[in-house]
Formats: sequence, C-alpha cells, structure tokens
Amino acid sequence: MEKQKNFVAVNYINCTPEYQERFEQLFGTRAHAIDLMPGFVDMQVLKPNTEGDAYLIVSHWETEDAFKTWTSSPAFIEGHKRGFEDLRKAKEEGRPAPMKSDFKTYKVIAK
Amino acid sequence: MEKQKNFVAVNYINCTPEYQERFEQLFGTRAHAIDLMPGFVDMQVLKPNTEGDAYLIVSHWETEDAFKTWTSSPAFIEGHKRGFEDLRKAKEEGRPAPMKSDFKTYKVIAK
Repeated sequence: MEKQKNFVAVNYINCTPEYQERFEQLFGTRAHAIDLMPGFVDMQVLKPNTEGDAYLIVSHWETEDAFKTWTSSPAFIEGHKRGFEDLRKAKEEGRPAPMKSDFKTYKVIAK
Repeated sequence: MEKQKNFVAVNYINCTPEYQERFEQLFGTRAHAIDLMPGFVDMQVLKPNTEGDAYLIVSHWETEDAFKTWTSSPAFIEGHKRGFEDLRKAKEEGRPAPMKSDFKTYKVIAK
C-alpha cells in the first residue's frame, strides 16, 4: 500500500551565486539520515530553471508530528552539519551568509 | 519501473480570502485531463498551513517538452476553463482578480 503523503514541508533556499556549486554538492552527497526517520515518505531537491529563484527542498511526511520530531532530532543537526558550518564560518569572517532559508508547510488537498 | 521525474513545474497561486473555498472546490473536482498527457507523472495541490501564503500546484513531468506540449494543448484550456471563467467575470464586473498565479520550473537534482 502506498504511504500517505498528507504533510509537505518546503524549504526555500536562496544561495549566493558563488555558493551554488557547494550547495548542490552538499545535497548530492547527503547522508540520507532523514530517510530513516519514522513517518518520512520522500524528498526532492529542486533547482530553479531561472537564475536567482530559490532552490526548493520538498519533503513529504505521513503527519506533521513526524516532521516536527525530525526537526528537533539529533539527525536534523547531523544532516545539516556541513551547511551550518559554512554559515558559521562566513559569520566569523564577516562575510554575508552564503544561503538563506525559509521553511513553509502545506497539506496535500488534491492529487 | 518507476517513471523519471526530472522536470517539475510549480504554479504559485494567491487567492483572495473569499475565493479560497471555490478554488479548493475546483481542484477537488478537477477533470484529470492532465493525467492523460504523455510524459505526465503526477501532481499535488498543496494548501499552505500559514494564512496568506500561496497554494502550490506541483506537477512532475518526464521532460520539459512534455510540460510545454501540455501548456499549449486544448486539454490545458479545457482543464482551466472554470478558473479562467471566474477571472473573466471578475474583470467584466470591475472586481479585483480572485487569484494570481506565478509559474516556476525546476529540475530534480537530488532525492
């Protein structure tokens, strides 16, 4: 039976042009720790076809609770370690943040 | 074999508060004409959990060409008939547009 996909989280990420390659490399080599979280269904990383638009990290969950449990889990910290490290370094060196993210959540109401 | 999902189109739709119920009803009773288009994989209609955020109509396609063929097909006009009619009526009656849409396209670069 196909898993339910009621809850969707979209992380809208704007990268500086010089950070894009690194950003794509981080997701291309992700640890897949999220895949083991209970209630996780699947995710896609979407690269915009128009320069300057945000990348979308779309994750599907069986329930909102499953998503919330993940965002406060050690796996969340571990999975974002390299990106968080890049942000910390930029701040320490007085450079602008290489990426900015904006999380929004949704319910699937039709297919 | 699972179909490829390389190309993703996201239609960001902002509805006026009074149009939301009608908008959801239109998608809840959609004709599914798009489902028969060659290269169509699947779609989801996402309702924002935060009031005022856009609805997302996310469609997955095997290729960009398949998507473009659909947007210029009779099935596209037919599938959007009721929404287009609502927009036309509002314009005729001098009311503000009940919804505004913004199409963006993406490539899936990681899962």
